[in-house]
Amino acid sequence: MTVSFDPSRRPRIAIVGSGAIGCYYGGKLAASGQDVHFLMRSGLEAVRSQGLTVRSPDAPEIRLPRVQVHGSPEEIGPVDWVLVAVKTTANAALETLLPPLIHPGTVLVTLQNGLGNEAFLAERFGVERVMGALCFIGVNRVAPGVIQNFGQGTISLGEFQGPPQPRTQALAGAFRDAGVEAEVVDDLLTERWRKEVWNVPFNGLAIAAGDLTCDQILADPGLLELVRGLMREILAIAAARGHAIPPSYIDYQIERTQPLGAYSPSSLLDYQAGRPVEVEAIWGEPVREARRAGVEAGRLEALYYLVKRLTAV
Amino acid sequence: MTVSFDPSRRPRIAIVGSGAIGCYYGGKLAASGQDVHFLMRSGLEAVRSQGLTVRSPDAPEIRLPRVQVHGSPEEIGPVDWVLVAVKTTANAALETLLPPLIHPGTVLVTLQNGLGNEAFLAERFGVERVMGALCFIGVNRVAPGVIQNFGQGTISLGEFQGPPQPRTQALAGAFRDAGVEAEVVDDLLTERWRKEVWNVPFNGLAIAAGDLTCDQILADPGLLELVRGLMREILAIAAARGHAIPPSYIDYQIERTQPLGAYSPSSLLDYQAGRPVEVEAIWGEPVREARRAGVEAGRLEALYYLVKRLTAV
Repeated sequence: MTVSFDPSRRPRIAIVGSGAIGCYYGGKLAASGQDVHFLMRSGLEAVRSQGLTVRSPDAPEIRLPRVQVHGSPEEIGPVDWVLVAVKTTANAALETLLPPLIHPGTVLVTLQNGLGNEAFLAERFGVERVMGALCFIGVNRVAPGVIQNFGQGTISLGEFQGPPQPRTQALAGAFRDAGVEAEVVDDLLTERWRKEVWNVPFNGLAIAAGDLTCDQILADPGLLELVRGLMREILAIAAARGHAIPPSYIDYQIERTQPLGAYSPSSLLDYQAGRPVEVEAIWGEPVREARRAGVEAGRLEALYYLVKRLTAV
Repeated sequence: MTVSFDPSRRPRIAIVGSGAIGCYYGGKLAASGQDVHFLMRSGLEAVRSQGLTVRSPDAPEIRLPRVQVHGSPEEIGPVDWVLVAVKTTANAALETLLPPLIHPGTVLVTLQNGLGNEAFLAERFGVERVMGALCFIGVNRVAPGVIQNFGQGTISLGEFQGPPQPRTQALAGAFRDAGVEAEVVDDLLTERWRKEVWNVPFNGLAIAAGDLTCDQILADPGLLELVRGLMREILAIAAARGHAIPPSYIDYQIERTQPLGAYSPSSLLDYQAGRPVEVEAIWGEPVREARRAGVEAGRLEALYYLVKRLTAV
């Protein structure tokens, strides 16, 4: 069975999660004329009274004086698309937040980081309605309702299971109409594993090796060796789970990190600011995948338990 | 060829390294009437003017008002026994400190922590003159020339290569005559690997997981899992290098750690005090042994590079 909304009418869209990613993509879609409903907790009153602003270095500022913002999913009711943008550390809350938004044709799209988010939604709400997106963008919420991004970035959309469908293309089209560079990917999970190849070592060592930026990690011969070892482990797990990534991808990821200089990975920023770090989505899930696959991944396991401990509140 | 001193005359003994271990064992031997010469840098003047004091909770205080203390190995000249008690982080200095102390029959005994110290001496000064000792004792230098120990402890003596010799028994006898509980071990290196089974995880995680004491490590399910994984890796490397340790030793080591409570491993104390941490002897050598043996030891490698970075000065 395939879940797809009726393309003959304007879809209702819910954005679940009021952080930077949710406000950014929701704001772009709303500005393009889509029927977007924001589910918010923090910042709700500010956005209700002052609207939403999206500032970009390479695009005109978006000012939305009136935004459809809600404090509960019941207030929104069933929608055609749900874009899930809560932090993965809050995934448990989705079990109560999502049901009021779902009708038989609702599609759920996770814009979240790391691994396991599509599976989480599929287990609870049905595999046929789940899609995922990888957001390649730097974006911050500088104040309630005020979003600053750093270059337009891109979004990669794909089905959790199987090849792209008309609905996949439809969502990509909606993003493009909103001025967001969107591509449809044939194999979303392989893309997620590719992102893990970078996230696991750089986000992890930035925290565990003592608040380091990318250039400091690359400049330490031992840590660079560990980066490569971690990347090899991720490739081995991904391959065992059916997601082949060529070994040359390791050098590619290290080379593309050089020009980032003193860049602080997002998990380090979360850690330093005392915000929850997405430990399970970034490190815990690949550890569990390694066990399911019977792949030895000791560096990853060590980093997982250390980061988990260091970021525990 | 075997190196052994002439048992018919009183041996000359040099203690190289003026830290707690060197002063404690040298002080005990001197108090028992042995001809002990201390090579010191820090604390030299204080010991020369005030002598050496060893305080124990379970033995009479030792007061040595006059100690044979020297600032250079040339001042001491050739001796029969050299007890090496410098920190392993200062091993390079032994290349110039030891030659003036060595005659054809000199035996070198390393009292140092970790792996690789016997091999270091053997490569530079001849395998036939090398012995090692494992010191199971808690001892601090509370002031220059003032040593405080916490229970008498024991010392295990063995040959670097091969079974015990008359000289091994002779040194054990000298320690026993000085009131030190000493045993001769048949296989010194296996004993060193056994000590690594505890040192690698507890000293390492105490530093890398954020200044933790043993009870905090044991109480964290993830870190306890990591302790076990690290111990399994050490056993695998030791086995591949010919040092069989039964798997039950893992549970034994974890159980014996429970009653230690909020104990800070010595490397954590060094780290917190800004002193050098013995990274290569504790973590670096087993990593290199794993590579020589072709054993995968990812948790150990991760911990090594993280501790190395965190403790870099």
